[in-house]
Amino acid sequence: MLVESAYGKSRVRLVQLTRRDDRHDLCDLTVAIRFQGQYEECYTAGDNAGVLPTDTMKNTVYALAAAGAVTQPETFGLALAKHFLARNPRLDHVRIDLTERRWARIPVGGQDDPHAFVGQGPDARTAQVTGSREETRLSAGITDLLVLKSSRSAFTGFVRDELTTLPDTDDRILATSLTATWRYRTTDVEFGPAWRLIRQTLLESFAGHDSASVQHTMYAIGEAVLERVADVVEIHLVMPNKHHLPVDLSRFGLENRNEIFVATDEPFGLIEATIAR
Amino acid sequence: MLVESAYGKSRVRLVQLTRRDDRHDLCDLTVAIRFQGQYEECYTAGDNAGVLPTDTMKNTVYALAAAGAVTQPETFGLALAKHFLARNPRLDHVRIDLTERRWARIPVGGQDDPHAFVGQGPDARTAQVTGSREETRLSAGITDLLVLKSSRSAFTGFVRDELTTLPDTDDRILATSLTATWRYRTTDVEFGPAWRLIRQTLLESFAGHDSASVQHTMYAIGEAVLERVADVVEIHLVMPNKHHLPVDLSRFGLENRNEIFVATDEPFGLIEATIAR
Amino acid sequence: MLVESAYGKSRVRLVQLTRRDDRHDLCDLTVAIRFQGQYEECYTAGDNAGVLPTDTMKNTVYALAAAGAVTQPETFGLALAKHFLARNPRLDHVRIDLTERRWARIPVGGQDDPHAFVGQGPDARTAQVTGSREETRLSAGITDLLVLKSSRSAFTGFVRDELTTLPDTDDRILATSLTATWRYRTTDVEFGPAWRLIRQTLLESFAGHDSASVQHTMYAIGEAVLERVADVVEIHLVMPNKHHLPVDLSRFGLENRNEIFVATDEPFGLIEATIAR
Amino acid sequence: MLVESAYGKSRVRLVQLTRRDDRHDLCDLTVAIRFQGQYEECYTAGDNAGVLPTDTMKNTVYALAAAGAVTQPETFGLALAKHFLARNPRLDHVRIDLTERRWARIPVGGQDDPHAFVGQGPDARTAQVTGSREETRLSAGITDLLVLKSSRSAFTGFVRDELTTLPDTDDRILATSLTATWRYRTTDVEFGPAWRLIRQTLLESFAGHDSASVQHTMYAIGEAVLERVADVVEIHLVMPNKHHLPVDLSRFGLENRNEIFVATDEPFGLIEATIAR
Repeated sequence: MLVESAYGKSRVRLVQLTRRDDRHDLCDLTVAIRFQGQYEECYTAGDNAGVLPTDTMKNTVYALAAAGAVTQPETFGLALAKHFLARNPRLDHVRIDLTERRWARIPVGGQDDPHAFVGQGPDARTAQVTGSREETRLSAGITDLLVLKSSRSAFTGFVRDELTTLPDTDDRILATSLTATWRYRTTDVEFGPAWRLIRQTLLESFAGHDSASVQHTMYAIGEAVLERVADVVEIHLVMPNKHHLPVDLSRFGLENRNEIFVATDEPFGLIEATIAR
Repeated sequence: MLVESAYGKSRVRLVQLTRRDDRHDLCDLTVAIRFQGQYEECYTAGDNAGVLPTDTMKNTVYALAAAGAVTQPETFGLALAKHFLARNPRLDHVRIDLTERRWARIPVGGQDDPHAFVGQGPDARTAQVTGSREETRLSAGITDLLVLKSSRSAFTGFVRDELTTLPDTDDRILATSLTATWRYRTTDVEFGPAWRLIRQTLLESFAGHDSASVQHTMYAIGEAVLERVADVVEIHLVMPNKHHLPVDLSRFGLENRNEIFVATDEPFGLIEATIAR
Repeated sequence: MLVESAYGKSRVRLVQLTRRDDRHDLCDLTVAIRFQGQYEECYTAGDNAGVLPTDTMKNTVYALAAAGAVTQPETFGLALAKHFLARNPRLDHVRIDLTERRWARIPVGGQDDPHAFVGQGPDARTAQVTGSREETRLSAGITDLLVLKSSRSAFTGFVRDELTTLPDTDDRILATSLTATWRYRTTDVEFGPAWRLIRQTLLESFAGHDSASVQHTMYAIGEAVLERVADVVEIHLVMPNKHHLPVDLSRFGLENRNEIFVATDEPFGLIEATIAR
Repeated sequence: MLVESAYGKSRVRLVQLTRRDDRHDLCDLTVAIRFQGQYEECYTAGDNAGVLPTDTMKNTVYALAAAGAVTQPETFGLALAKHFLARNPRLDHVRIDLTERRWARIPVGGQDDPHAFVGQGPDARTAQVTGSREETRLSAGITDLLVLKSSRSAFTGFVRDELTTLPDTDDRILATSLTATWRYRTTDVEFGPAWRLIRQTLLESFAGHDSASVQHTMYAIGEAVLERVADVVEIHLVMPNKHHLPVDLSRFGLENRNEIFVATDEPFGLIEATIAR
């Protein structure tokens, strides 16, 4: 018995150049498309009637981009979802995931070059559209926003059992590679400015917080986004704790001044939360 | 308002050696632990009372392993879940994910060396335990089982629209890196033999199938596992389509005999399904 | 017979915080150390007398950092090389490789926060010191500088044989992830300002060039660095050609306007050169 | 001044199917091609006359494979090098790097399926051909051969200075992901059987050695290959020390029995040597 199924195309890479008189605009997206619907006979009987090939999904990304410039991942995702729902009667539920690599114009002699770009990162802009016959949902986000603060970060007063060896600390490095996704109240949003405002709000609230834990800071930055951006109704945050362990210099006859750290990748704490109005 | 939250430790790497008289046994696990429960005040008020540090979660992995040999990822996951639920009154729901790197003994002169091992792969064995005060659920699985068949694979009769350029084919390479997870009826299973039987069943049913699509083969191998292993009640399969594109040799004045392919990583089709009794 | 040998420690990760009255400074380095010398008996006889453990190499990174703030990768590499040569009579030749992850201060209300940082990338700053009893050589560099230009890039007039299918193009996207390493005339250089000037020169010369090929642009940017930075005596450049293939929209009944591209990761062209005065 | 230059194509992926009456044979190669020669004007003047596009190099891989089955990476590399040297008068020195992903036939009911394969790993087979007008050199190799031994591995008697904290140990886990490349005396070798014999020799000599250090074991396994395979004249070995650190269980009131380890990825020791007759 087929309980559940989905199929689609991932890692469809699109670079769209918009040739304007005085400059080129660049949009660099990686798109994933996922269909759920009445495709049981494809699985159970090998009957492909009604199945849109994933190769055609890929072609659709390029054709729709060509038909109208991709100005924002959010609007392009909405257009793709609408297109697939309109054309595929067996499709009940479509999901479009988009990740935008950010490029900045190269400054030459203090002026932006109109045709040359330098990649920005490591953080990327994301969007997700899910659509059915009844409703369309839109979320936007940011991944891999790497941040670190070296003051106002503590972790004390936690549970101690016989397996606990972590000392209390009132002065540690707090570093994370933040991923956030948020839902907008409507699809009638200036997506670019909203995204940039949220990115800046994430950075500022991270910097400004008196952190008692990753969880504590997570909640504070979620609150800050909800406060500052009225169109956001809910935000989901994921923050791996990128541990920076103080090196015990006393073994070398040196004083420990909380200045020398080992950055570690594993194991890592992983904290997540959804915060809504 | 905190709608949802979770925290835990990921990438806890454990290698346990069991020193027997005539040989060593080796178990190589990577563990992730995830807590959900009454931890709101940690987020909203920076109050860590009741919060078990993720560092202690990590220590627990090592201490529990030391207290009793880890014989199977499934049983170790069950032990960890039980331990955390017993000790943490605020914990409502715990999830343990385990991935085992497989090692084989090195054959020396036709005999297995008792203390030397060679890594097997790329496929790995996995298990997941989710536990609450009311119930414990266990699933097991395999990731990255790389398989390819060069006959009895077709893809024809699909929807054609004006964006479809894929030709019908009745003879293509079908390749995937299979991930499967399945739920057992009980926790009273010989996990090692069951896992090996399921791996072999996945391989054999993949090899033996007359494939009309990835979906079709997916269903067939799911069915084969349910048929052959009575303790499995449900199986979830994920199969990225690792496309092998025929090179058009006619451009070089050579005959196309469907023998020369480009293996590609992106874009890729992604098919998934859950099959149950 | 042992023809050649080397040993060392890789991926030593150091984060140094310098606590000043009004701000913290941050230096985030990954260091690799490589020894070559009279260590034959370690290999041939299992005699470790004279062998400095790689674990001690790692400790040395932290101890030397603690003893004096790491201000630049170049100077820290020089200090490490000097230390190891002074202490290890069997060491003939030491190599130190350093990669710096770049962090910027988070702007809060238009002002740099003194204790909070956001990761910059994808490009990183590198340095390499090689030292022997006779001489010390220093190079600096940049890796993963991702750049793209959408005009003034052609590739025409190349060799055509019966296996050539690439059309001439006088208007293509040129994209690369540039790695450059350069040697300084002396070690008496303001390394930070020099590095930033060279990065800017790489960007500007890439943007400004009328490119007949990746090779052509590579030479031009190498020349630009040598021209603008008198202390650089030689520069080595590596530029993978990150191909952006135009999508043939005519298959969908759409006009090809050279605006829609597939970004591909493989295969890729790989171009390198060393340019000197 | 252009001191040195090279260009080529990397990550050319070829899967060749040989259709025999009773079975298919599969060869899965990733190829890189690198040209050095009289290509200065391409760099300095943007003159592409004489430059073979890297796209044609890629096509050549497919065309040559189609013209004659690729039976071994070594022979295919030799054929590619010969082809490029014969056709490109400006080419002085060509290098072909080949990596073969290994596949085994899927056993079905105790018999090998003739058309279905399962990927083997993590180790892969490699070959390198370098050719000029005067000579051709061939080497073969293996990468990522993951091995671990849990007895007969010590590390004692090394240099101690004030920064040394590593204790002597006469019983540690020794694990590595071995890469070996070797040169053959002639090109008239049964490459497949030789490769398998060398792989087995690497495994057996690793298992059988009383190790005083990674270096010591490296030399022993290099010697074993030279002893057992007369056609090998030189072998280069690279062995990252995949450290397994004993967990200090005494912190949890448990006995340390040298059975519980943390596998770590960084930092890591890196040992290499070339051993010849």
